[in-house]
Amino acid sequence: MHILVTNDDGVQAPGLLALTQAMKVIGKVTILAPDRNWSGAGHVKTLDRPLRVRETQIADGTPALMSDGAPSDCVALALLGLVENVDLVVSGINPYSNIGHDVTYSGTVTAAMEAVIAGVPSLAFSLASQDNSSDGLPDYSPAAQVAGQVVKKVIDEGLPEGVLLNVNIPYLTEFKGYLITRQGLRVYNDELDERIDPRGKPYYWIGGEEPTGVDEPGTDFGALQAGYVSVTPLQLDLTAREAMEILRRWSW
Amino acid sequence: MHILVTNDDGVQAPGLLALTQAMKVIGKVTILAPDRNWSGAGHVKTLDRPLRVRETQIADGTPALMSDGAPSDCVALALLGLVENVDLVVSGINPYSNIGHDVTYSGTVTAAMEAVIAGVPSLAFSLASQDNSSDGLPDYSPAAQVAGQVVKKVIDEGLPEGVLLNVNIPYLTEFKGYLITRQGLRVYNDELDERIDPRGKPYYWIGGEEPTGVDEPGTDFGALQAGYVSVTPLQLDLTAREAMEILRRWSW
Repeated sequence: MHILVTNDDGVQAPGLLALTQAMKVIGKVTILAPDRNWSGAGHVKTLDRPLRVRETQIADGTPALMSDGAPSDCVALALLGLVENVDLVVSGINPYSNIGHDVTYSGTVTAAMEAVIAGVPSLAFSLASQDNSSDGLPDYSPAAQVAGQVVKKVIDEGLPEGVLLNVNIPYLTEFKGYLITRQGLRVYNDELDERIDPRGKPYYWIGGEEPTGVDEPGTDFGALQAGYVSVTPLQLDLTAREAMEILRRWSW
Repeated sequence: MHILVTNDDGVQAPGLLALTQAMKVIGKVTILAPDRNWSGAGHVKTLDRPLRVRETQIADGTPALMSDGAPSDCVALALLGLVENVDLVVSGINPYSNIGHDVTYSGTVTAAMEAVIAGVPSLAFSLASQDNSSDGLPDYSPAAQVAGQVVKKVIDEGLPEGVLLNVNIPYLTEFKGYLITRQGLRVYNDELDERIDPRGKPYYWIGGEEPTGVDEPGTDFGALQAGYVSVTPLQLDLTAREAMEILRRWSW
């Protein structure tokens, strides 16, 4: 079992270290991750510039490859042949949850999407660490243990074709268990924050409070709120099938 | 009816000009688009740097706003208050089709996704111009006419909540009509193109032939191949519902 590890926080992020260590117990690991943070970068395919890949190592001495591409570029480079015979792609561990509408923005999840498009099973792991303001790192150990358990299940059972698992782990030392969930609704609290630069010209931050979500049973957000690990199978077919019927009734 | 026009090719792209002119017949138009090309940029939310917005005008003299953010950032800025009372967002016209798995990569489509997340109805328009190598611009007039017709229908009928329309227009002067389609399967022909720089170091292009698709009736690609305008309703719930049942049978 040859596992490719990537993330969207950059190759030196502690979440990638924790995930790597959990995967090493299961199989051969190759790391190919971005050389910088790409949070919120979306599903990128870099076609207008070439990409670099350099050798490095992460904090525990494990050799790693890093690229100046996006997370999805890293997966593309690997699966196009830069890394041979990859059986599984894992992405993370992201320090914040990736739930609801986050999934199309998230570098962590879109890296896993890239693998599924290339026909390789994949999983995205995110830790719902609550305290974004803390200088201290979140403790990734319980989440890494969960990642190991879920990956083992995926290896044993196999994933349905075209499906990736989006796994969100509550920031607790003890979980109530696992819930298979649907994607819930994020509530973004973004605000336009207009400022004036030293030369008198305006610039704009996308500001505001952290996003919350609609706490509904059966959803990713609901599972996290209730203390469960949320496992959401995602597909890349976005067709709104009920809307198709409605549209067909319009006069075209 | 106040329509926000954006795209992923940059504010000066001829596809945006054609779309703007078609929208001006229908309502008040405000343009807020990227100041450069963001093709393949994915669903970006720029949080790590502030965004600039500057005034400009497009080729026919229509005033426009341009930002150094991604297409989805442009929509976010507008709907967070930079542009008041937007009723509808249209994105395009992209010079190439956005079908199958393209939708999560596409700046054109992810701009429309951003609008739907903010609760504003939206449409993405792409022209399946075949000849990517041509120096001549594609003729956007027939596609712009289609955009006008589809937007009028959306205004008359209203879109279901959380749904955007991904409209792909064949590069023909006469269409067979409209088909409501599901998202099909893209076939990417990407190849790793390794080169050596003048200093002896490797770099990598994501190269290869243009993507094709699986020509299945009922899909976006199938409709284009058959000479129809493809109208695909897309949602942002990516849950693979059949896979949920399979996963629930695993021993957790």
